[in-house]
Amino acid sequence: MSLIVQKYGGTSVGDAGRIKNVAQRVAASRKQGDHIVVVVSAISGVTDRLIKLARDVTPTPPEREMDVLLATGEQTTIALTAMALDAIGVAAVSLTGAQAGIVTDGVHTKAKIRNITPREVHRLLNAGNVVIVAGFQGQTPAGQITTLGRGGSDLTAIALAAALKADLCQIYTDVEGVFTADPRIVPDAHKLDEVAYDEMLELAGSGAKVMQLRSVEIAKKFGVVFEVRSSLSDNPGTIVKEETRSMEDIVVRGVALNKNQAKITLVGVPDRPGIAAHVFRALADAAINVDVIVQNISHGAKAPLTDLSFTVEKPDLPKAKGVITGQAADIGFQEVSTDENIAALSIVGVGMRSHAGVAARMFEALAAEGINIGMISTSEIKISVVIDLGRGEDALRAVHKAFLATGS
Amino acid sequence: MSLIVQKYGGTSVGDAGRIKNVAQRVAASRKQGDHIVVVVSAISGVTDRLIKLARDVTPTPPEREMDVLLATGEQTTIALTAMALDAIGVAAVSLTGAQAGIVTDGVHTKAKIRNITPREVHRLLNAGNVVIVAGFQGQTPAGQITTLGRGGSDLTAIALAAALKADLCQIYTDVEGVFTADPRIVPDAHKLDEVAYDEMLELAGSGAKVMQLRSVEIAKKFGVVFEVRSSLSDNPGTIVKEETRSMEDIVVRGVALNKNQAKITLVGVPDRPGIAAHVFRALADAAINVDVIVQNISHGAKAPLTDLSFTVEKPDLPKAKGVITGQAADIGFQEVSTDENIAALSIVGVGMRSHAGVAARMFEALAAEGINIGMISTSEIKISVVIDLGRGEDALRAVHKAFLATGS
Repeated sequence: MSLIVQKYGGTSVGDAGRIKNVAQRVAASRKQGDHIVVVVSAISGVTDRLIKLARDVTPTPPEREMDVLLATGEQTTIALTAMALDAIGVAAVSLTGAQAGIVTDGVHTKAKIRNITPREVHRLLNAGNVVIVAGFQGQTPAGQITTLGRGGSDLTAIALAAALKADLCQIYTDVEGVFTADPRIVPDAHKLDEVAYDEMLELAGSGAKVMQLRSVEIAKKFGVVFEVRSSLSDNPGTIVKEETRSMEDIVVRGVALNKNQAKITLVGVPDRPGIAAHVFRALADAAINVDVIVQNISHGAKAPLTDLSFTVEKPDLPKAKGVITGQAADIGFQEVSTDENIAALSIVGVGMRSHAGVAARMFEALAAEGINIGMISTSEIKISVVIDLGRGEDALRAVHKAFLATGS
Repeated sequence: MSLIVQKYGGTSVGDAGRIKNVAQRVAASRKQGDHIVVVVSAISGVTDRLIKLARDVTPTPPEREMDVLLATGEQTTIALTAMALDAIGVAAVSLTGAQAGIVTDGVHTKAKIRNITPREVHRLLNAGNVVIVAGFQGQTPAGQITTLGRGGSDLTAIALAAALKADLCQIYTDVEGVFTADPRIVPDAHKLDEVAYDEMLELAGSGAKVMQLRSVEIAKKFGVVFEVRSSLSDNPGTIVKEETRSMEDIVVRGVALNKNQAKITLVGVPDRPGIAAHVFRALADAAINVDVIVQNISHGAKAPLTDLSFTVEKPDLPKAKGVITGQAADIGFQEVSTDENIAALSIVGVGMRSHAGVAARMFEALAAEGINIGMISTSEIKISVVIDLGRGEDALRAVHKAFLATGS
């Protein structure tokens, strides 16, 4: 007998009919004799409706009370899901995050799970029940209701799977799995059978938003193997797990395009120790995430100067420029320029480590399309280039074709 | 410094604007230096919406899961109310029933409060907060979410006031207090300054539905003095408390008309011991509440027969008739007749105990209007008559005028 954790997102439980579909799917798994723990999100749209309700009362609701309010969303879904299972003859019991033993720190609206004491979950499973757990929520050791922030239900599922030592964790969503590229842009993109945690992290970080980074990090940390699959079909999805030797045979696992980046360049920065540290500490203190960073070689002999470029999320651009301008005296650059008409294109794959010539092949594919490369940044398993926003989708298709086209 | 428990019902917190009004009212009380505990209901309409959501999933939702679902209604209101207070600079913290230490039995959807451990409420009050508690809900000793059934928020307020030894308990509602009669029917009806628990119980039982019986019973049991008043005005309401000697000076406190009754008569019942017990045990087993019961004197000498009449709530009539017909062989009546065109009119007052001639005066008032009396039933502090439904409102006005008209 296996223990399976299944997570269903907001669109999968979007109305009474969909909740009944989820119940049918859970019942089918249960009939095979396995123990099933189901983690559910709020019905899609409910969280936004609750946030609007709060804003109608005050523009600045206290975060503790936001958590009390938002937690009702998932609590509604667990009750309805348990009812739907009961209605088709499957014994089921719902648990809030607190009742399931999910203990978090006290950082309201973005709490971190500290530990899980799944005694009640085990007791109910052993009594023959499907256990329905509210995603996205927990409680502090003192009994305050908390929520985990965006993507929190995935996190609940992964963390519960770890605590329960589950045999399998299935993340049901509205896509068929993880693809080699966004299929809306690349018609030739195909679903991956498996992907390594690190590849998934780099793909997510590069704009392929199947799941939030944090959930994948937790899965990697605790070695939770999980499957991303569709709640609308019976097709197998993508298995996400620790990399294996055979994974290295595939050089590039996926290609991601991030159109939500902007570039800042500091021209004529003094080339001496501590300058870069100063710049990025100031940005970090302002909670601005920086993605690609490139510093060119210095020019000039007496007082060497360099150019420092980096990308930030587009909505952060005005704030980032303000931070840099405010530090102008300390940094001492000659000029600051910004560019919003850029995109970051990344290829990701653990196989890159042991294969030479990957970058060259990527650049050749772009050159053949006449696409100019503005910045280049590489990590062990990722190569990112910054290009013109207007050529982003052409670039994605060209690079996908070079590495991942069926039959290539 | 006093400790005041204030309860606001569903219409008082009906939308964001009304929740802000409640916050203003609470803030005004708080500014006088008192400790305030606020008990709130679900926003009006929310509970019905949740019930519909459940019915969309299954016609027979398990009661445990109904409680998990319904409890989200009050949890939403406590968060929004705490936000509204915070927004006007009043420190406030929300607590679910479970967090407030409200422990109930395990009878889901109509749980009874077993005890309250208000440690967290005291701690938060002493730290200078207004404490907002979710009405209508609690948890079992094992941590299951429960709800208290209709009128449950009043019950939470009364029971909390008892557990906290509050100085005052205010039940805010959409009426100005308890009236001598329904002012929509009797223009001359006026608000009572005070009423005894027993009078309130008899009035409520006779169709004057300001509050549920159960809350008044608990208040009486624990000696909680409470005030029923309007959340839409600053007028003082009606104080409900143990009867005092001065209350006896007023013979009739109020007049109530219950139009939701139906009459069943068993004609020709054998007049021997055990027959009435058999009839009403069968009805009780079917969870049918019986109000007025009248048994006429027996007629016939050899095998004496009697007629047995009683009233039930109109919706229960078909069920009640079915129960009686099913027991026909055991009871042995000659005929059963029913009448839906009746109303029960009651006068209530603790002063009746020490005043003679009250019944005569009531019957005279009805006779003067040409209203025929079908059944009569009396208790120590109440006299009820069953009359034609069509004359119910005339009768109410006539009897009110006889006992309670201003200047009478």
